[in-house]
Amino acid sequence: MTEPELLEALASLPGWVAEGGAALTRTHKFASHSEAMGFVVRVAMAAEVLDHHPDLRIVYDTVHLRLSSHDTGGVTARDIRLARKINELLD
Amino acid sequence: MTEPELLEALASLPGWVAEGGAALTRTHKFASHSEAMGFVVRVAMAAEVLDHHPDLRIVYDTVHLRLSSHDTGGVTARDIRLARKINELLD
Amino acid sequence: MTEPELLEALASLPGWVAEGGAALTRTHKFASHSEAMGFVVRVAMAAEVLDHHPDLRIVYDTVHLRLSSHDTGGVTARDIRLARKINELLD
Amino acid sequence: MTEPELLEALASLPGWVAEGGAALTRTHKFASHSEAMGFVVRVAMAAEVLDHHPDLRIVYDTVHLRLSSHDTGGVTARDIRLARKINELLD
Repeated sequence: MTEPELLEALASLPGWVAEGGAALTRTHKFASHSEAMGFVVRVAMAAEVLDHHPDLRIVYDTVHLRLSSHDTGGVTARDIRLARKINELLD
Repeated sequence: MTEPELLEALASLPGWVAEGGAALTRTHKFASHSEAMGFVVRVAMAAEVLDHHPDLRIVYDTVHLRLSSHDTGGVTARDIRLARKINELLD
Repeated sequence: MTEPELLEALASLPGWVAEGGAALTRTHKFASHSEAMGFVVRVAMAAEVLDHHPDLRIVYDTVHLRLSSHDTGGVTARDIRLARKINELLD
Repeated sequence: MTEPELLEALASLPGWVAEGGAALTRTHKFASHSEAMGFVVRVAMAAEVLDHHPDLRIVYDTVHLRLSSHDTGGVTARDIRLARKINELLD
């Protein structure tokens, strides 16, 4: 994904930040650990369908997501698709 | 739990219906199977904390809950407490 | 699915029972509610991938599964595929 | 928790490593993302009961756990109890 393509994709992905061209990250704080876990399970279900999985870090009520296409070492259309799906779950 | 006590408890538990004095039931339809599952996981977490577990039936996007105190064969204060907690998750 | 086809499929699906030609059912008792819920989440993930969902009933440490193709009102190849996947999770 | 106490506790907690006295960590690789998620949900249920929550990192089929008592800035009896419970789930 070229840098202009990445910037254009990010413009329609509120909450996500690019780590250079290497990954997309988003952090979300929920009202409770329970709410965070409900979200994590839904992300896992969506990730299985897309066959593309985020790195997830759960710290009590806060979930850190990191998307990267490990095979290419950068951000690809698969990461954008997963980020969009995750935003649907959050918004 | 006497019938007047049960009726009083139900008055503050929107969505729940008494099956005579034997059980409390609530059915909730979500926007998707994913949303239903996120809820089910949160119910399971709350149930472990209260050490009291609902019967759960999941039919795609719809969850049927049934609360009963199996040892006494009726509705007790433990069911009311769990129903209140579940309503917090739903509302 | 014809009855001979269904019987042949069942022969390779230990644990499943046919409700006439209408549905397949399997009941599994786990060591705890926690173990039952871990299984239910994995079933939900597999079901999303196959885009075909079992009816699930969770009674503490026991999970009842019922597979049916609602659109055709009977058992189809989609139910067999999901049953196989669920058996992989159980065995 | 004194260093001798911590060392003694670790001796009965296979898989866990001390980060100095600041935290306990354990990493476990599962056969699939699905199996990893089933485990994570069970950890979340146990953590709610103990009212003490690990930091969790999920990278596809691998789960990294980190236990620390944030209020005291070190490892306490609560971390040991949670580590024991997690080992019961893993073993």
